[in-house]
Amino acid sequence: MAKILIIGGAGMLGLRLAQALLENGEAGGVPLERLTLFDMAPAAIGDGDGRLCVETGDIAEAGVAARLLAGRPDVIFHLAAIVSGEAERDFDKGYRINLDATRALFEAIRVENAASGYCPRVVFASSLAVFGVPLPDVIGDDQILTPMSSYGTQKAIGELLLADYSRRGFMNGIGLRLPTICIRPGKPNAAASGFFSNILREPLAGQEAVLPVGEDVRHWFASPRAAIGYLVHAAAIDTAKLDGRRNLTMPGVSATVADEIAALERFGGKEAVALIRRQPDQAIEAIISTWPKAFNAKRALALGFVPDASFDAIVTAHLEDAGGR
Amino acid sequence: MAKILIIGGAGMLGLRLAQALLENGEAGGVPLERLTLFDMAPAAIGDGDGRLCVETGDIAEAGVAARLLAGRPDVIFHLAAIVSGEAERDFDKGYRINLDATRALFEAIRVENAASGYCPRVVFASSLAVFGVPLPDVIGDDQILTPMSSYGTQKAIGELLLADYSRRGFMNGIGLRLPTICIRPGKPNAAASGFFSNILREPLAGQEAVLPVGEDVRHWFASPRAAIGYLVHAAAIDTAKLDGRRNLTMPGVSATVADEIAALERFGGKEAVALIRRQPDQAIEAIISTWPKAFNAKRALALGFVPDASFDAIVTAHLEDAGGR
Repeated sequence: MAKILIIGGAGMLGLRLAQALLENGEAGGVPLERLTLFDMAPAAIGDGDGRLCVETGDIAEAGVAARLLAGRPDVIFHLAAIVSGEAERDFDKGYRINLDATRALFEAIRVENAASGYCPRVVFASSLAVFGVPLPDVIGDDQILTPMSSYGTQKAIGELLLADYSRRGFMNGIGLRLPTICIRPGKPNAAASGFFSNILREPLAGQEAVLPVGEDVRHWFASPRAAIGYLVHAAAIDTAKLDGRRNLTMPGVSATVADEIAALERFGGKEAVALIRRQPDQAIEAIISTWPKAFNAKRALALGFVPDASFDAIVTAHLEDAGGR
Repeated sequence: MAKILIIGGAGMLGLRLAQALLENGEAGGVPLERLTLFDMAPAAIGDGDGRLCVETGDIAEAGVAARLLAGRPDVIFHLAAIVSGEAERDFDKGYRINLDATRALFEAIRVENAASGYCPRVVFASSLAVFGVPLPDVIGDDQILTPMSSYGTQKAIGELLLADYSRRGFMNGIGLRLPTICIRPGKPNAAASGFFSNILREPLAGQEAVLPVGEDVRHWFASPRAAIGYLVHAAAIDTAKLDGRRNLTMPGVSATVADEIAALERFGGKEAVALIRRQPDQAIEAIISTWPKAFNAKRALALGFVPDASFDAIVTAHLEDAGGR
């Protein structure tokens, strides 16, 4: 019987992962016994399921990680993070949550490992922000990590720690560099990447959306559904096949803003496209120009991670998920 | 007037760096005012020089880094480290010194920077141990960092922190991945790499030395003199030329054990070569097989870092330094 812990369980991915795990009723072929969602705020999820446990706290605080391990989760998803913009504005907070809390978690696992041989699967959400310019148009699995933000630095350090703690046998870790999630559900937000989702989600719902960059801007995407698939797959994969390279760039769909708009027209017609308001923003254009455009994610594909089939599939997933929930 | 701090000042490189700085009498064109050598044990250096200050302590201890910054050094060489084998045996000690102390130093600098705009040059000794297999025969400047030891992990994290703290403007850092030092002065030691120096130093002094690997083993070397040259150059270089890529693989000499033995014969004759005792050690052979063989250190060469001219030059440097001191 599998016990699963999601750290960052109240976030967009954490909640959807929880719903998927509860629906699947198993993880890696083992029936789900208990699913604990941990976050700063209580996860907004129905409490009717006896397998579910919602906990709150600060993962960076001394003793909190050890307390979370008391239930001996077989699989730990570590999704908690201060996002890029905030980690850049608040240096201390970014390092405290994105680095110190990650290390505190791994350290608590090491202590348990020494005491009892406990060795959980740890699935760590890393980020494309570990990469920095200059970047080739299509990035391979051996691209050097030269982050250009404190967030990217913290994620790159998390990857290194995960690899070392796993190599030493304290835990069985796997790190996933997730593509930019599109179409991100919810309201438009201030993130530099927000427009990639806004220009689809809002017009599809009859609302205006702002496009701050040109149509030739290209980036790397996964639907929330594909991202959840990656996390679930990572929990069950045979990590011996990783050959000690524990951190993987996830596959995705490479698309330009023009590709997005063409998809929008197919699903919403010209009147949807007319809801996009072009309002060039040089600051956002400058940030996005340093971002990855496309990857050849050979290793992850060979290991069975399955991306969205096309950009249209990303829109379809959004419409189905938005309709179903 | 330049004030310089060497953390790890009692080590082999620290002491030689100190001697070179005192002899040069300047750093980056600025007269040397004060040179502080900090280490666990007092640096074994004459106390007749009024510019010299020898201090002891534990750099990982709270408040120690801040105390060292009270003198406002313009240049900080951070050479202190727990070596690879010990960091592998003693996980806590390795992370405490190689990661926590490095971060404590950078944090103390950040606090001073916020208080007064203090922004020292920080020269960080990184290591080839940041690289892991599979490796090409000749490694370029864009090789991904996949360390295979806790030591290499800690150095890779130090590089990432150095880059982020520099990008944020808290300090002006540069990290150097130093080649294996050859001919390492002193007694044979238990390090896996020790034989590269032992098979030259000992026979040149009429002593036997053990060779645990085959003659075709190839590796990447710098004399102590060249390594000191790298550190001194890094203290004075215009870091704007680094284009934000703050960590550099240093140039060196790629040589096989056969190349070493040929050089030994040229300097010490057949009787010196006869002092090498072949005693194959599969454990050492296995470790060495994962090590880099050669680099194309384009960036560092373009930035003016000058390697030894040949393996013979490495032997010559040893004989001159051993004779002169």
